[in-house]
Amino acid sequence: MSEAALTLEGWYSLHDFRAMDWNGWRRASEDERAAALDELYTFLQQWSTTEADRQGSTAVYSIVGQKADFVFMHLRETLEELNDMENAFNKTLFAQFTIPVYSYVSVVELSNYLAGSGGDPYENPEIMARLKPALPKANHICFYPMNKKRDLQDNWYMLSMDERKAMMRSHGMIGRQYAGKVKQIICGSVGLDDWEWGVTLFADDALQFKKLVYEMRFDEVSARFGEFGSFYVGNLLDADKFQAMLAI
Amino acid sequence: MSEAALTLEGWYSLHDFRAMDWNGWRRASEDERAAALDELYTFLQQWSTTEADRQGSTAVYSIVGQKADFVFMHLRETLEELNDMENAFNKTLFAQFTIPVYSYVSVVELSNYLAGSGGDPYENPEIMARLKPALPKANHICFYPMNKKRDLQDNWYMLSMDERKAMMRSHGMIGRQYAGKVKQIICGSVGLDDWEWGVTLFADDALQFKKLVYEMRFDEVSARFGEFGSFYVGNLLDADKFQAMLAI
Amino acid sequence: MSEAALTLEGWYSLHDFRAMDWNGWRRASEDERAAALDELYTFLQQWSTTEADRQGSTAVYSIVGQKADFVFMHLRETLEELNDMENAFNKTLFAQFTIPVYSYVSVVELSNYLAGSGGDPYENPEIMARLKPALPKANHICFYPMNKKRDLQDNWYMLSMDERKAMMRSHGMIGRQYAGKVKQIICGSVGLDDWEWGVTLFADDALQFKKLVYEMRFDEVSARFGEFGSFYVGNLLDADKFQAMLAI
Amino acid sequence: MSEAALTLEGWYSLHDFRAMDWNGWRRASEDERAAALDELYTFLQQWSTTEADRQGSTAVYSIVGQKADFVFMHLRETLEELNDMENAFNKTLFAQFTIPVYSYVSVVELSNYLAGSGGDPYENPEIMARLKPALPKANHICFYPMNKKRDLQDNWYMLSMDERKAMMRSHGMIGRQYAGKVKQIICGSVGLDDWEWGVTLFADDALQFKKLVYEMRFDEVSARFGEFGSFYVGNLLDADKFQAMLAI
Amino acid sequence: MSEAALTLEGWYSLHDFRAMDWNGWRRASEDERAAALDELYTFLQQWSTTEADRQGSTAVYSIVGQKADFVFMHLRETLEELNDMENAFNKTLFAQFTIPVYSYVSVVELSNYLAGSGGDPYENPEIMARLKPALPKANHICFYPMNKKRDLQDNWYMLSMDERKAMMRSHGMIGRQYAGKVKQIICGSVGLDDWEWGVTLFADDALQFKKLVYEMRFDEVSARFGEFGSFYVGNLLDADKFQAMLAI
Repeated sequence: MSEAALTLEGWYSLHDFRAMDWNGWRRASEDERAAALDELYTFLQQWSTTEADRQGSTAVYSIVGQKADFVFMHLRETLEELNDMENAFNKTLFAQFTIPVYSYVSVVELSNYLAGSGGDPYENPEIMARLKPALPKANHICFYPMNKKRDLQDNWYMLSMDERKAMMRSHGMIGRQYAGKVKQIICGSVGLDDWEWGVTLFADDALQFKKLVYEMRFDEVSARFGEFGSFYVGNLLDADKFQAMLAI
Repeated sequence: MSEAALTLEGWYSLHDFRAMDWNGWRRASEDERAAALDELYTFLQQWSTTEADRQGSTAVYSIVGQKADFVFMHLRETLEELNDMENAFNKTLFAQFTIPVYSYVSVVELSNYLAGSGGDPYENPEIMARLKPALPKANHICFYPMNKKRDLQDNWYMLSMDERKAMMRSHGMIGRQYAGKVKQIICGSVGLDDWEWGVTLFADDALQFKKLVYEMRFDEVSARFGEFGSFYVGNLLDADKFQAMLAI
Repeated sequence: MSEAALTLEGWYSLHDFRAMDWNGWRRASEDERAAALDELYTFLQQWSTTEADRQGSTAVYSIVGQKADFVFMHLRETLEELNDMENAFNKTLFAQFTIPVYSYVSVVELSNYLAGSGGDPYENPEIMARLKPALPKANHICFYPMNKKRDLQDNWYMLSMDERKAMMRSHGMIGRQYAGKVKQIICGSVGLDDWEWGVTLFADDALQFKKLVYEMRFDEVSARFGEFGSFYVGNLLDADKFQAMLAI
Repeated sequence: MSEAALTLEGWYSLHDFRAMDWNGWRRASEDERAAALDELYTFLQQWSTTEADRQGSTAVYSIVGQKADFVFMHLRETLEELNDMENAFNKTLFAQFTIPVYSYVSVVELSNYLAGSGGDPYENPEIMARLKPALPKANHICFYPMNKKRDLQDNWYMLSMDERKAMMRSHGMIGRQYAGKVKQIICGSVGLDDWEWGVTLFADDALQFKKLVYEMRFDEVSARFGEFGSFYVGNLLDADKFQAMLAI
Repeated sequence: MSEAALTLEGWYSLHDFRAMDWNGWRRASEDERAAALDELYTFLQQWSTTEADRQGSTAVYSIVGQKADFVFMHLRETLEELNDMENAFNKTLFAQFTIPVYSYVSVVELSNYLAGSGGDPYENPEIMARLKPALPKANHICFYPMNKKRDLQDNWYMLSMDERKAMMRSHGMIGRQYAGKVKQIICGSVGLDDWEWGVTLFADDALQFKKLVYEMRFDEVSARFGEFGSFYVGNLLDADKFQAMLAI
């Protein structure tokens, strides 16, 4: 069976990282700021409704440090919906006070290495719940994109399926130790974006991100084959917290 | 016979990726926006006519995520025509509301590894149709530039022609499994742009991009020798869809 | 015992590097500059109070050269507090005259390699003083982020704990020769930011930064496994020195 | 004899790549545009005169794609002249409508590997014609900077002179097959700019750039030791073509 | 004896590379330009006086190409003085017409590999003249930052002191062949800036930069262990030449 056939895919995903144009926001009139916030609240409300209808899911978090001020992580059925959402956002007054800083296009996936046996997985409600999940409302988010290395003798893609399976199993064991503390959503982006995967972690205690990722780094899969992009960490936002964050 | 002599070249190609200046677009008057859209529609119409006359071909797609908002992929007979087209576009009011973010200059090519035997290939209508193609109107586009690695013992260009031929053949086999699902146009840009090749894929189901590229990554040609740039993925645009995307 | 479990973590940390928008600052009216400086002084005062209350600590230094004009290094109990602090700063008039140039999110840590034996370290006042320190008011600061390499046979994370322990011990010996001359705060950022660690050094004689870091570079831990980001060096600031620096 | 002593140097060279500020150009009044173009034509005329007087040479080409809109390649006797030329250009109204995007400072050189025997080469008119050449007016230009690799066992500078000589000879053979189709000017920039060499190719058929560079890539000198920067390709410009390109 | 203890340090150094904002400069009124130039001349005069008083030294050169328009290389006793100088400059009207493009913070050093025997070197007038030098007024400047590589088997810092000493001696021999033609100032920046060293060369004939650096590249120290940043080359400036350069 082919490698690709063993991977399961669910909703498409768009991580949309934005910085505030604080100078513009400060210079805007109070009326403008109120109008802009209304647009934002309307979006938050719409995304909530979509999630309640199980037609998608959206996570909204602030980002600590200068890399971004907040992130929208949207899960939807099609690339067209994701594209429509970013266009709708870009046309608003609120968007005028934001600066796009990084985005990541992918699709929720379950790895072939963990594939169960028997039955059409797309008919399995447990699997479907993981492929089309309601994103957690944990206190903190952590996102990072990654590749599997292809560097001379450290070439993941030249290993046999058995070697890869064995390593991924030990890798999964570490993750399981963090069950209940860290929830993880894996997105695949081969052919869709610059990195091969994007990992989004959710936890009530941000220190668990550090402990989990550090622990994994000594595991051969990460140690020899992991190639990591930027890490983004942040705090849960909702309409009230957004208002407090943006109140001048 | 020399390496270069075995490669066939057709139309020159320009991939022109642009972001919208959404703030400027929003602040423009309705009249300005209407005038700008008229210019855009006129271009779309002209490019259609050129394609109908088999003097070239142009694909128009949105791009999902922040990397770009849309791409024009132009195929024409000469570099002068491509240069004239970008200059003509840059002089318009519509172009004032766009920001150039990435471009790629190349020429459609057929690899020497797949070369048939006998006859002048440039007199072969089947080959000419592939060298000067009408670009598909599939739902989705995927573009990425790539190199063949030259890194110590993983050096594509130090392999013998026979070794390369064998690997490319197995590589081609994977592609053939996606026949009917994914259409692929290979452009060569050695001596024309920073990467050696640009791959443009067209599919009605975007997931097939992921499956095809992932499958190929385990193939030795990609696994050991593939070096990939940014991946751009998007949705088909026409005048109506462009209007919807830009309607304020 | 797991790798992660052996590391101790204290306060979260945000290094916030900023450049002055000198042109804007110069063009501002004297009243605006005075109002902006008042905001800055209020922050400096607040941060001082927090430090006196042992609820956190903040170091304020200028940066020499074009990379930045100054840095705030904030230590606080939670990511939410750090996020609130940057948002509060970003909303001020003073912030309008600054340009964010680099930030680093991390948590103060004590390495497992140096772990003492016996007792709950989080109950040990000496250890807690190092995990939640009052930052020094030395004449000079030096900051740089770093990774441990994972490059073929130079892969830190593939070494045994014993090998790593031995190397870290010899590394620590060099540091100890600079006791009394250089004070060092190690922050960990695996899972929090792009680099794995951030080193902040404080010294009254800036030449000791050079001597310490150069000496360490010949040590196997740095020589074979150290991967370094940008180095920032600067001079102690307080309200008076800030005023002198910004007086037009 | 030392390596350096075997290389011959002629005129200094400045490649000055510029993009048009199309928005500014479009918004300018017709009078402004006319005045700006007059300045440009005056420069073109002056450079022509210098070339006729054999005091230097200048090539003027458009660039296809978004990397730049045009390039001036200036050859002059001294760095002072080149510096004066860029300053004179920067002070004009026309320059206000351009954006500097890349430049390359070097000196025309003849490689020691090809050195003839006997006599002072600087008295040899044939050699002098190659060191202080009149740049071709071919239809197309191709420019790329390059290094010779120093990467572990692929280290050009650790080879013996004889090994290098043998490889360069075979490399030169490929070039000779393109005699009459492609004219090449080699500039050296060790100690002058970031890359070690800059290759400028001129051809009436742009496809010959691709064929030549591709063919060479399989040659050991390029395959194992070539490190390439960005490739720029463009079309010949003169006053009339410039006017057409910039006509609004 | 430790590695660090064998290196001698003199004045701190700031290389401050700036581009002109030519558009702003052109649009300024003649009065503004005159006022701005007066500020510049005052600085040049001050720096001259400091040099005459042997309290520091400043070199002022134009830079050829788009990387920068000019560089100030300041040597002073302390980091505080260098910081004050950049702040004083940044507050001027003249600075408003410049754009900071690159800076480099370091300290003049004499390598331990060349260390003489006997006596306190800081009491030796010959050594002190090299550690606190009056910068030459040669026609041309060349600056580049560099590292010693730490790449698998090409790791400078894993070599023994004897191996390094032998290689540096042969390296120094090449330099000595250029005595009288090229004067070189070595600055160390380990712990102070991103690169480990900065080399500043001065020569009346710019071609000697190329010959010296090219010759050295074949030397094992450079060939196997040298890692080079950007090269900047320029021409001597003084008040009159600055005026000519900036006259509109």
